[in-house]
Amino acid sequence: MPHIELPEGLPGIRGAMAFRPETAKHLNELAEILLHQPNSLAAGERELIATYVSHLNDCYFCQSAHGAIAAAHLNDNEELVKRVKADFQHADISAKLKTLLVIASKVQKGGKHVTAEDVEEARAQGATDVEIHDTVLIAAAFCMYNRYVDGLATWQPREEELYRQRGKKTAREGYVAVSREYIPQNAHGAHSE
Amino acid sequence: MPHIELPEGLPGIRGAMAFRPETAKHLNELAEILLHQPNSLAAGERELIATYVSHLNDCYFCQSAHGAIAAAHLNDNEELVKRVKADFQHADISAKLKTLLVIASKVQKGGKHVTAEDVEEARAQGATDVEIHDTVLIAAAFCMYNRYVDGLATWQPREEELYRQRGKKTAREGYVAVSREYIPQNAHGAHSE
Repeated sequence: MPHIELPEGLPGIRGAMAFRPETAKHLNELAEILLHQPNSLAAGERELIATYVSHLNDCYFCQSAHGAIAAAHLNDNEELVKRVKADFQHADISAKLKTLLVIASKVQKGGKHVTAEDVEEARAQGATDVEIHDTVLIAAAFCMYNRYVDGLATWQPREEELYRQRGKKTAREGYVAVSREYIPQNAHGAHSE
Repeated sequence: MPHIELPEGLPGIRGAMAFRPETAKHLNELAEILLHQPNSLAAGERELIATYVSHLNDCYFCQSAHGAIAAAHLNDNEELVKRVKADFQHADISAKLKTLLVIASKVQKGGKHVTAEDVEEARAQGATDVEIHDTVLIAAAFCMYNRYVDGLATWQPREEELYRQRGKKTAREGYVAVSREYIPQNAHGAHSE
């Protein structure tokens, strides 16, 4: 049971966002820019970073939701998503993405764990400053989203198909568009009624 | 030296934000709502939560910047800020804020550390659902901001007076207003020039 009274029937971060639309707006816009908007890193690659960090933080909802979005971007390759979580160094992804996943895993432990050598290795594989920046911020942001979802003890259903269908929709339409379904659009949301 | 080429002369998160104005907008708006806008928790109390989490994450810039903003809200009581960081259970703050700091410290470790008992104790001291929600999200958000600042190895000057002056300004004007000084206001920021 969630630690506070959240709107019913909305899993994971969605219940928390519907509870507090003012902050939800910026949480969604941030995800939209980092994960969905055009970028030199493909959306599928960025979702793999988000999924891997959520896996390291042991957040069931976020790793399932973003794993499904990643798979939707990657020709429904769910096996690849599983492989990245289990052992990304031997997954069929680019050498550049492997160096970015190393940086993301360091950020998950704490920002100071990232070394100049980690960044040099990413650059040697062609990573740009914006890609390194975005990798650090995606990893940092999921250290927030994961804690938000688990810190409120949100409802996290176990049906894989639910995440699969939702993942296809978010991969297609983006975070801001799908959030309009469940976030009250008036300035003062559910919590202040 | 920062891991990527950030605009010079901007300490901590400010250099990173000036580098990527698109994400900076939402990072600032989120801080504005969580820490500066009117709320049943005083701004000084919310800044103490942000400062304490940044201290637990050992982020020099964030604990100095938010510690100074907290002090500015609390009649320049810098001793109280130090006391909260060192031993909040014996600091001169409300029993309610102590229970919220317990929740924040659990979120810093990971969302699943927050227990129903932690939340019950906060409620017994009068905490509302919105206050519990905001405490979890402030703590989670600082697990992001701290990792962002340290994960890019930003420049973090050691002069206390710099943080003190800036803290007074941010306490007075808020995050979005002061960020206009250093974040390019055109849609495509410094990094894409």
